[in-house]
Amino acid sequence: MKTDKIFNLKKYLAYMSKEVNKSLKKYLPKDNSIISQAMRYSVLAGGKRLRPVFVILGAEIFGLSKEKIEPAVCAVEFLHTYSLIHDDLPAMDNDDLRRGKPTSHKKFGESAAILAGDALLTESFNLIAQCNVPSIRIVKAVKIFADYSGYKGMIAGQAEDTLEAGKWNKKNISLCKKKLEFIHINKTSALIKASIKIGAVLAGAKEKDLLLLDAYAHNIGLAFQIADDILDVYADKKLLGKNGSDKDNDKLTYLSLYGKEKSEKNARNLISEAKKNISKFKTKREVLEAIADYMIERNF
Amino acid sequence: MKTDKIFNLKKYLAYMSKEVNKSLKKYLPKDNSIISQAMRYSVLAGGKRLRPVFVILGAEIFGLSKEKIEPAVCAVEFLHTYSLIHDDLPAMDNDDLRRGKPTSHKKFGESAAILAGDALLTESFNLIAQCNVPSIRIVKAVKIFADYSGYKGMIAGQAEDTLEAGKWNKKNISLCKKKLEFIHINKTSALIKASIKIGAVLAGAKEKDLLLLDAYAHNIGLAFQIADDILDVYADKKLLGKNGSDKDNDKLTYLSLYGKEKSEKNARNLISEAKKNISKFKTKREVLEAIADYMIERNF
Repeated sequence: MKTDKIFNLKKYLAYMSKEVNKSLKKYLPKDNSIISQAMRYSVLAGGKRLRPVFVILGAEIFGLSKEKIEPAVCAVEFLHTYSLIHDDLPAMDNDDLRRGKPTSHKKFGESAAILAGDALLTESFNLIAQCNVPSIRIVKAVKIFADYSGYKGMIAGQAEDTLEAGKWNKKNISLCKKKLEFIHINKTSALIKASIKIGAVLAGAKEKDLLLLDAYAHNIGLAFQIADDILDVYADKKLLGKNGSDKDNDKLTYLSLYGKEKSEKNARNLISEAKKNISKFKTKREVLEAIADYMIERNF
Repeated sequence: MKTDKIFNLKKYLAYMSKEVNKSLKKYLPKDNSIISQAMRYSVLAGGKRLRPVFVILGAEIFGLSKEKIEPAVCAVEFLHTYSLIHDDLPAMDNDDLRRGKPTSHKKFGESAAILAGDALLTESFNLIAQCNVPSIRIVKAVKIFADYSGYKGMIAGQAEDTLEAGKWNKKNISLCKKKLEFIHINKTSALIKASIKIGAVLAGAKEKDLLLLDAYAHNIGLAFQIADDILDVYADKKLLGKNGSDKDNDKLTYLSLYGKEKSEKNARNLISEAKKNISKFKTKREVLEAIADYMIERNF
């Protein structure tokens, strides 16, 4: 039964990822400037397209089909890609590989990578503004998008991760746990929250329903990141196309702070909490539940 | 007579710059994270605040006061500042000083500078969305802002300047002139265009009036950049707080392609063209004319 559900979700995600890729190609620049090439290279480098799927699901819960919000579906992937390009830079995580391919600065040089990231970030807001829904909803979506991806959200997480992590007093376990959760919530949950809420807002969702989706995204995002920490250490690194830079940089992880057993238990609790958060929604609830399970089942 | 006008403009700009600084302080982050500190440091490092003034003038031409669009006034300065922070990075122009002070990466480190730039860019869209005008105008402003600052605008200019300039065949003067104009139009005019048009759009301006403002901004932006090229070579570099990196990096300039006399003549023609572009506007026309003159009179 469980296997069936996972199998179906995999089919669903594979189908959705193809659909999203079609949309991405439509909204990516078509010219041959280095920046446009670099934008295409990183956006089309693969990935499960979970964030775009969350935008679509957010809209579908409230009865709006993805055709009306196709640019916003792409916007979250543009923004996610910009964050990966800048995170990989020599001054940041200094990664040479991403999904088994050379990172943007390795392929196009550092200045082109910085500018391609800037361009994807800028264009992501252009895309939100192009949705075929009432303007008042677009304005709300722009605010949500900027709040979660900006200095109070995703960038705060990245800053703490890059600038502060090495400075923590590792004997102060309680502070380390707090800081690590701050990083996880902002680096991962923030953009998942933004994605599902943007979809919902563009479909005209009410504030109280947005809060439920916020909680759902918070919980699955954190669970995902815990699972990712475990995966980073236990999985075959070659298979993932990453070179395990978290460990090389001596960063703190959930695993090092809580151990494998407690980490897995925490992740499972977060997932069951997430399912409660969305229990009132009739449309697409099963998909959201399956995705919640998938966040941790892919690993352990 | 001419001296009087310049004197008055200087007083006007000094007053406006103080007002803009008040607004900027209001919309900058208040917390003490490194990113927030870096955002404040660069935004409040000085500058004439011409772009914010253009947003205000754009709105005033069409009868809207700056109180309704104060966040958008700040947005263009946030965006301008992000572009300076990223342009100064070691991988880009590698500048140590900006307005006589250490550049962001010299003061806060390279990763903080990248993230502070990203944060200012992201927040600039949040600010546009916060204006107190009908949503339909905000959506138009977001599109204009993203178009002029993105991969088809400002970033295209920066990319050509950083990635391509050294590769041009300097014997092909005609190509060099074309490329240099492309850089100038995109690096400087684009954001001036965006500023005045955002103000106008937020005030409900019609398409045909936006085209006139576009032409005005195009012309004064190009003239400004020509004047800047001349200033870069002839003025006291210490006074400007720059270390003349354009020359150090062997970049092509208007001056090297056209000579001083022709450059000055071109700049003057652009300014008189700009004045024609705005001749039909009754409100604020004199200010726009004085600013046009100021673009080149500050230099020669």
